[in-house]
This record gives sequence, structure tokens and C-alpha cells, in this order.
Amino acid sequence: MTQTGAGWLRILGLGPGPLYWQTPEVTALLGEAGHVFGYLPYIQRLPPAITATRHASDNGDELARARAALRLATLGEKVAVISGGDAGIFGMASAVCEAIDDGEPAWRSLDVQVLPGLSVLLAAAARLGAPLGHDFCVISLSDRLKPWAIIERRLRAASDGDMALALYNPASRSRRQGLEQAIACLLAQRGGDTVAMIARDIGGAAETVDVTSLGELDTMRVDMRCLLLIGASNTRRIERPGLPPLVYTPRSYS
Amino acid sequence: MTQTGAGWLRILGLGPGPLYWQTPEVTALLGEAGHVFGYLPYIQRLPPAITATRHASDNGDELARARAALRLATLGEKVAVISGGDAGIFGMASAVCEAIDDGEPAWRSLDVQVLPGLSVLLAAAARLGAPLGHDFCVISLSDRLKPWAIIERRLRAASDGDMALALYNPASRSRRQGLEQAIACLLAQRGGDTVAMIARDIGGAAETVDVTSLGELDTMRVDMRCLLLIGASNTRRIERPGLPPLVYTPRSYS
Repeated sequence: MTQTGAGWLRILGLGPGPLYWQTPEVTALLGEAGHVFGYLPYIQRLPPAITATRHASDNGDELARARAALRLATLGEKVAVISGGDAGIFGMASAVCEAIDDGEPAWRSLDVQVLPGLSVLLAAAARLGAPLGHDFCVISLSDRLKPWAIIERRLRAASDGDMALALYNPASRSRRQGLEQAIACLLAQRGGDTVAMIARDIGGAAETVDVTSLGELDTMRVDMRCLLLIGASNTRRIERPGLPPLVYTPRSYS
Repeated sequence: MTQTGAGWLRILGLGPGPLYWQTPEVTALLGEAGHVFGYLPYIQRLPPAITATRHASDNGDELARARAALRLATLGEKVAVISGGDAGIFGMASAVCEAIDDGEPAWRSLDVQVLPGLSVLLAAAARLGAPLGHDFCVISLSDRLKPWAIIERRLRAASDGDMALALYNPASRSRRQGLEQAIACLLAQRGGDTVAMIARDIGGAAETVDVTSLGELDTMRVDMRCLLLIGASNTRRIERPGLPPLVYTPRSYS
């Protein structure tokens, strides 16, 4: 904090977990940063060789974390703020922008850049085949920061447009009802045989991928470590002998 | 083609261009493949050190390319099919699945895997800040493989849900009218001051990023090398002295 050179802030995504999914750009940047801010499980993922000072904080503290990082960068430090997956998809990039928007005027002059990362959205889809191979929507089911009415309006819109869906934060231990309502909302417009996929802990030790249908989806198997994918009406499932099915949304629409 | 061991097929995304956005997983796989199939500009991107036999083909030949790759893998070869960006987002993963679905029974027994890549969607958003920081839709404006009525229905749905939008294939030299219709369709439901962003050749030598508004968008500046991003109603633009604006969609909705 005694450094007086030009500080900077980089917001970056580590990818879903394995180092083979972390971009070389992010790996290089982490070697240059003097400080790294992030949610504890992401900080714990950093290899020992990273010598930056680690600032771990709890989930839910995004704005406070963003402000602390901006303050240090303004003092001339090289600061990285990390997310899992991609920082731009329900990650820290939006929180840092929000902090700048409402914060110190000096923060608007800072050298701030977002480095993209491999989103779990892409990794989960890859494990399944190509369920997001055509038009799709990405919606968070968490009503922590937005009213449920908005979520339901968006689910209905996605259904009206017959687009494939990726649902983030589908449920937590305490928040179960939203998922039930979401499934009911989708079933009102899509058939029960629409392909549904539960991608759990993608890239992690407990990774599982289940292919089922909207009508038969067992919501008790869905938790915060899951990304839920729902097909469009033309999303198809290819059965394979002795292998898991491949799921894809065709490029053409007929 | 004389090899008789177990062949495999890998479908992978190189990322938007620079090697620092290519995952280590993809880099390693390209070193193992005996054959690489892809659209000529992506094949030309492979470093000279890659010794695999290169099979370049034209844009529009996706199904034929997929079938040729599947045939070689069935003969015991190690085959990679490459896309730019991520193979699962308007890339080759869907085409290969389609070929398997309609093709030889033996193709269903092949060891087929999709390796995710950094989508230009994420890279373009990162250059701008966090425009896709909350719920969003991804829609291709190309009517080569789907009727325009479906595209318009999806644009209307995205507008009804007030979601940020990423528009792929927004226009080509010959296909201009769709973009005009899309803008008109969006303007019917969103204000002219909605943030609009033109991301061009992201990661390439001619990279540009323009932040404008839906009402002032100059469609003549949009071509096939562009990804067009349209904000939700609450997407914000942060002006910065001497720096390009930051654009973000807040995590909270109030």
C-alpha cells in the first residue's frame, strides 16, 4: 500500500474449476497482481505460486469486496478481483461496475478491465453435446436481488420465444419454491417431454450430468451447485449404446 | 487412415482469436489429434507445430464436414473438429450431433466429446464491462436456417422479458433487411435510449467496440464480423474521463 505507481483493477474469471479451463491470459494476470480479492472458495483455488496478498470474503459481500478492491487500486496497487466461471455472467464484473457507478469520482479514472473466463454455461453444455446450439436464454432463479415477478415474466418470455434455457441458482437449501414454480410455469407452455438437464459441479470431483425431461425432473436433485438446462421444443436427445445420450438443439428450424 | 485402434472425435472451440484465450485443454488436444477439420480461417489459425492433417472447408458446409470427420474417426483416427469461439454456441457441436442423429449407426458408438471454448459472447461483454451481468438472451439474426417469423417471435419474447440481448450474425453484405426489422421490433418495446453496443472483430487486429443507443444505432456499421449487444431497460452506461464508457446490467432489479 506504499506503492505510488499507476494502480489497476482487473476483474477475471477462473473458469469452472480445472486449470485446463483457465485461460493463459488469466494465468499471466494472476502472476502480476499484488492483491487478489474474491469469495473464499475461489481464493482457495489459487495455486501456491501466486504470491499476491489474498483477500477472501463471504458470498453476498460482492459490493463491499468491489469497493475494497477499488480503494486499493486507487492507492496504486495492482488488484485482481476473481469470480468462478466468467466474471461477466452473474459474476463480479457487474458488482465492480455498480461500485464505480455509485462510488468515488476517482474510481472512474482507474485503469479497469474485465478478462473473460470460461463460463460454466459453456462447460455444462459441452458435457451434454450442444443443448445451446441455437438461440437461448440465461436466467437466474435467485430472488435475492430481484422480485419473483420479474423471474416469472422472463421464464414466460423465454417460453413464448421457444428458446432453450440455462437456469442459474436454480435452488438452495432454503429456497426451493421458486424452482417448483419455474417448472410449473415452463410446463404450462412446453410439453412434459421437453429435454431437461441437471449439470452438477461441472469440472469438480462430484461432477454429474443427468438428462431427463421437464415432466419427470426430480427437483430434489437440484441445488446451488447445479446449472439447470431446459431444451427448446426442437431440442433432441440421441440415444447411444453403452454411452450417455447426446443432447442438441439443431441449427435449423423446420 | 491405416490406424485400427480406437478412434475418437473431439469438437472444440479455439476462442475468438488470440492464443491467450485458448484453453490449455484445447491446446493439448490439438497436439494429440491426427486430423483437424474446420472452416478455412480457423484452420489457418492453427500454429505450425500442430502436425495433424488439415481438412479445410467452406462456411455453409458444416454437415458435410461433420460427416467426413465422423467417417475418419470410425476408421480409428483421432479427429478434431474446430470452431471459432465456443463450438457449442452457433458452432460445430450442433452440426456434428445432427450428423450423428441422421447418420450411420456406428457413429453412435464413437467416443465423441465436446471441449468448451471461450465464446466471443463473453469476450465482447468483457471489453464493455458487464452488459450481460444479469439475465440475457442469445439470438442469431441469420434466416439461412430458420424462418424470419421465428426470429421476430424470439426478439419480441426477449423484449417482453426485458432481457439484455446478444445478436449473432446481425447482418451480412447481402442480408441487411433483417437487422433493420430487428431494430424496429426492439424499438417498439424498448426506449430509443436503451444502450446498444457494436463489438467488431473482438480479439482481432481490427477490434473496435462502439457504445451507442438503440435509437441512434448506425446499422451500416454492422456486418458479419460484429456481435451486437442490446441492453435491458436497466442496463447502465458509466461515463469516464478520457476512457471509454463502462456498460453494465445491475445484479439487482429495483
